[in-house]
Amino acid sequence: MMLVDGAERTHLSAQDRGLHFGDGVFETMAIDAGRVLELHRHLGRLEAGCARLAIPAPTRDVLEAECARISADAGRAVAKIIVTRGGGGRGYAAGPAEPPTRIVARYPWPAYRADIRREGARVRICETRLGRNPRLAGMKHLNRLEQVLARNEAAADGFDEGLMLDDRDRVVEGVASNLFAVRGGRLHTPDLAECGVAGIVRDVVIEEAAALTGHAAVIGALSVADVREADECFLTNSLIGVWPIACQAAPRRVDLADDA
Amino acid sequence: MMLVDGAERTHLSAQDRGLHFGDGVFETMAIDAGRVLELHRHLGRLEAGCARLAIPAPTRDVLEAECARISADAGRAVAKIIVTRGGGGRGYAAGPAEPPTRIVARYPWPAYRADIRREGARVRICETRLGRNPRLAGMKHLNRLEQVLARNEAAADGFDEGLMLDDRDRVVEGVASNLFAVRGGRLHTPDLAECGVAGIVRDVVIEEAAALTGHAAVIGALSVADVREADECFLTNSLIGVWPIACQAAPRRVDLADDA
Repeated sequence: MMLVDGAERTHLSAQDRGLHFGDGVFETMAIDAGRVLELHRHLGRLEAGCARLAIPAPTRDVLEAECARISADAGRAVAKIIVTRGGGGRGYAAGPAEPPTRIVARYPWPAYRADIRREGARVRICETRLGRNPRLAGMKHLNRLEQVLARNEAAADGFDEGLMLDDRDRVVEGVASNLFAVRGGRLHTPDLAECGVAGIVRDVVIEEAAALTGHAAVIGALSVADVREADECFLTNSLIGVWPIACQAAPRRVDLADDA
Repeated sequence: MMLVDGAERTHLSAQDRGLHFGDGVFETMAIDAGRVLELHRHLGRLEAGCARLAIPAPTRDVLEAECARISADAGRAVAKIIVTRGGGGRGYAAGPAEPPTRIVARYPWPAYRADIRREGARVRICETRLGRNPRLAGMKHLNRLEQVLARNEAAADGFDEGLMLDDRDRVVEGVASNLFAVRGGRLHTPDLAECGVAGIVRDVVIEEAAALTGHAAVIGALSVADVREADECFLTNSLIGVWPIACQAAPRRVDLADDA
């Protein structure tokens, strides 16, 4: 089921700037028992992304109503919202008065391997790296070629997820997830000021860990060695929730393929 | 006029990966007197980009026929080809068997300021930088948010073009053009191994300069100072051809706004 600008249809203008330039943002959310989980946090991030790109965000009322419409009769499913700068000509310059395009759609729940939560996710280091650009970092925008290339690397070899490094050999995130490492009782997660997507579950984990332990998570640089030598690592996103990364016998507990 | 997968229409599937991820490539070409200029070079670059992204490129016969169709009755106009990985689900992983989507469209010739060729282009340094990623560098792919943000900076202040730096303070290119600088009788142009788009006119200028002068162009790093202190600078792309950058009285001949 898909709504384009509120109407039930499955096509959009081939002049849309989302197509021509990736000029927009998106959200991917879990639907459970007829409602979108963490909808307000997702809409907050969507609005923040639109503001950074100077795209007028659709109102919350509209997006909430459309999310309710696509999820009302759903059990477990995925909701995706895309907001683009709308139509417009061929060139990079944004026209003055085009209304943004919004797409609200429902997809089937993905067929994750059944034992990942118990056994842990098999993870490799992707050869495709993340370029750094503070102007775009943290945002869930539509420029996702790096993720497409990295996902196909990881999937080709049967891994559940890939880890992506930047050009300084820092581990930034999973292809479609955020990374946490526990070391010496403290929670660490990569800083996303220069690249990466600041996930909603990442925010929740950071907040809850601080409330539970009284210690703020350490947000900083993580090397591959830091990840390999961590006591425990896990991945988060709005569909998987939390996935442990598969552990081997100590001392090398993180099962990272050695092909970085 | 627009052809989507060969049919005269102006919409495409809202599931297209070009929209969801910018998962594709494009070409922008000049039409003159009913034909697309430098079509073979453009199609060569399109095929090279598709190969790097593992997208099966449409055949030359098909693209040539569609370009002829949109340009036959045109005087001076712009042609644009977009090729995406096609439809497919919500996730980053590319499906196995989706055919690529191709769009071939004609647009009006842009209204460039009439005296740019004589007076020179007014150019500023954009605050938006280019992220570096060798996997994507040189390619004319659909992930163009950096250019959208930079163009709107330059256009907002009435400049004809913006120059974009990378995070190492190297000048890489114009927002929609390549940059050349002449210093001591030699032609210099930025190396595009880590970011930037390798333009068709850039290739032509490099080849013709070598043939005319017997000296290969120097392809390397250019700083803002190198550009400011050059004897002459110019911009190239398939629509503007060659634009000189406006000069002031020597010794500071390049009119670069001081707001980097």
